[in-house]
Amino acid sequence: MIHPTALVSPSAKLGSNVSIGAYSIVHDHVEVGEGTVIESHCEIGHPSSLAGGKPLVIGKNGLIRSHSVFYEGSVFGDGLVTGHRVTVREATMAGENLQIGTLSDLQGHCSIGDYVRLHSNVHIGMHSRIGSFIWIYPYVVLTNDPCPPSEVRQSVVVCDYAVIATMTVILPGVTIGEGALVAAHSSVNRNVDPDMVVAGVPAKPVFKTDQIKLKDGSGQPAYPWRRHFTRGYPPEYVTQWLQEFGSDGTP
Amino acid sequence: MIHPTALVSPSAKLGSNVSIGAYSIVHDHVEVGEGTVIESHCEIGHPSSLAGGKPLVIGKNGLIRSHSVFYEGSVFGDGLVTGHRVTVREATMAGENLQIGTLSDLQGHCSIGDYVRLHSNVHIGMHSRIGSFIWIYPYVVLTNDPCPPSEVRQSVVVCDYAVIATMTVILPGVTIGEGALVAAHSSVNRNVDPDMVVAGVPAKPVFKTDQIKLKDGSGQPAYPWRRHFTRGYPPEYVTQWLQEFGSDGTP
Amino acid sequence: MIHPTALVSPSAKLGSNVSIGAYSIVHDHVEVGEGTVIESHCEIGHPSSLAGGKPLVIGKNGLIRSHSVFYEGSVFGDGLVTGHRVTVREATMAGENLQIGTLSDLQGHCSIGDYVRLHSNVHIGMHSRIGSFIWIYPYVVLTNDPCPPSEVRQSVVVCDYAVIATMTVILPGVTIGEGALVAAHSSVNRNVDPDMVVAGVPAKPVFKTDQIKLKDGSGQPAYPWRRHFTRGYPPEYVTQWLQEFGSDGTP
Repeated sequence: MIHPTALVSPSAKLGSNVSIGAYSIVHDHVEVGEGTVIESHCEIGHPSSLAGGKPLVIGKNGLIRSHSVFYEGSVFGDGLVTGHRVTVREATMAGENLQIGTLSDLQGHCSIGDYVRLHSNVHIGMHSRIGSFIWIYPYVVLTNDPCPPSEVRQSVVVCDYAVIATMTVILPGVTIGEGALVAAHSSVNRNVDPDMVVAGVPAKPVFKTDQIKLKDGSGQPAYPWRRHFTRGYPPEYVTQWLQEFGSDGTP
Repeated sequence: MIHPTALVSPSAKLGSNVSIGAYSIVHDHVEVGEGTVIESHCEIGHPSSLAGGKPLVIGKNGLIRSHSVFYEGSVFGDGLVTGHRVTVREATMAGENLQIGTLSDLQGHCSIGDYVRLHSNVHIGMHSRIGSFIWIYPYVVLTNDPCPPSEVRQSVVVCDYAVIATMTVILPGVTIGEGALVAAHSSVNRNVDPDMVVAGVPAKPVFKTDQIKLKDGSGQPAYPWRRHFTRGYPPEYVTQWLQEFGSDGTP
Repeated sequence: MIHPTALVSPSAKLGSNVSIGAYSIVHDHVEVGEGTVIESHCEIGHPSSLAGGKPLVIGKNGLIRSHSVFYEGSVFGDGLVTGHRVTVREATMAGENLQIGTLSDLQGHCSIGDYVRLHSNVHIGMHSRIGSFIWIYPYVVLTNDPCPPSEVRQSVVVCDYAVIATMTVILPGVTIGEGALVAAHSSVNRNVDPDMVVAGVPAKPVFKTDQIKLKDGSGQPAYPWRRHFTRGYPPEYVTQWLQEFGSDGTP
């Protein structure tokens, strides 16, 4: 399962059934869990003096698509799935079942919970703190420097179940509350309350998320999204969500 | 013309004078027309269970620049030209002379007409329907989910001759009318009439495209653009356009 | 220091201690100064009829990270540092100590001074004229065509010490004055005065940069940024800047 053209360090610790594609490079300080597939043209465990001597750890049953680059010094739980050409720098600490879309760029020194979905071309600035069950759509940028360029860093915090739509900037130090929805093409410079919709440049509160109806003709509320969208989540969560919201669409 | 380091499946059907660059991979279900050049570090015909067993078909005299990834299950007419690092997923059905700029990401399950120009870093969401003779500029995103995340998909439709300027989002279900112009940094949440200019977040109609003068000192109208911009189009179209608009700049 | 899998033209002129990574390609018309490191999966000196027969010249002690593509016909001073997957087209004329972030796309036929920092995913349109000591943040686009598509090109000009924050578009022909700050998520369609802050879509003047205080609790002005941010600049500049602004934060 190691392609003959792959360059794999003898120091790398690969679990059983790990697959490494053609023309990929696996460096010294790398641990990959069983069943994980690394496609072609990747560079895994790029050496870095910023990694503090820590290895890159990738869990079981992951899939890293072609042309991706991961630095040493980060940790990913089981079930990591990436698109093509993702870049992940040092000290990215991520939970289980993270999805990172094609071209996304994680600058490192950040934390990410479980079941987070980063779509294509998402930019996660250093020191971001991202909870669990979050959706971030293409061309979203999480920033960190309030007076660029300065040495000050203010973390963006994204709370559980939040959704950030495409082409949005979250400015330094802003917290996106639990279950909040940031509309497409917004620039968010103030904290967003839980379950609030914000939109615009700069973004302003519009209404609560429960005012939005699904566009499937059902007349049901679209948010919290986990009352209707359960694809890809494990049965224990789905069961919990169904119990939480009931079959009539009310919590 | 097949570089010795290229990994080409014996099942791939390559026309005469097809060139495959160094460190590129061509998978099983691939058909490439004569004279097409595939540069280095590409992955062509990436296997996918979403391709329905259909091959990747690329026409004649194309040019796919380095580090690009094409999945199986898509069809491209003759004269395809791409930049570097483009990603094209399954079921992209495209006509002739498509140009796809560097870093652009076509998510698949979409249709594209003839002579479409996608500049760098364009994101074409699934189910987009793009006509012919269209220009889409860098960092434009065509979306599809009206209540993200949901299972509903609403196609963006872009009609012939339309122009979408840089850093613009087209929201789900929106139709951009024939010959319309979307200004840079817009967020379009309503249908745009033919030959209308829209701008802003959210975008609003500004005036008709014929109010815009060329910035070359001629005083001629800038739109419809095909009255003055003909580079790269075949003589039969150019002749037709010149007849349509006359030499005095009036239709 | 040339990896055995690297494909290096015997015509390429490599200085002493130049390193070429695995699976990288160095074409004929390339000159690389001593001590420069080119990582894996790169393509350096991509042939082009638009380069006028001129070589790609890269100075000393540079670092080009993996998966990057440079065309022939450009010149870079010493100390060039790039992220991963950068694309640089023909006739890019750059000074010393340029940094180009991951995924950035320089379209060529542009000039760049010394100590310019382009962060990730910056798009530099053709004919841009960029001074020295400038910061451009992720997802910024410098454009050039006032009536797309047309044959007219109007250069964006960015003057020394200017800062352009993330997700901003600079429209064709616009000059960003010395020391100006363009806020995140702006669309700039008029010239920006020196030391002015502009923000919005379209961008409007807000106040002078000296009204912004550092967010480090010091109460000091955040701009001109070189009164407090000196990391990465050589001692002769730092000394000059300290003398210019004094230790009490006043010029």
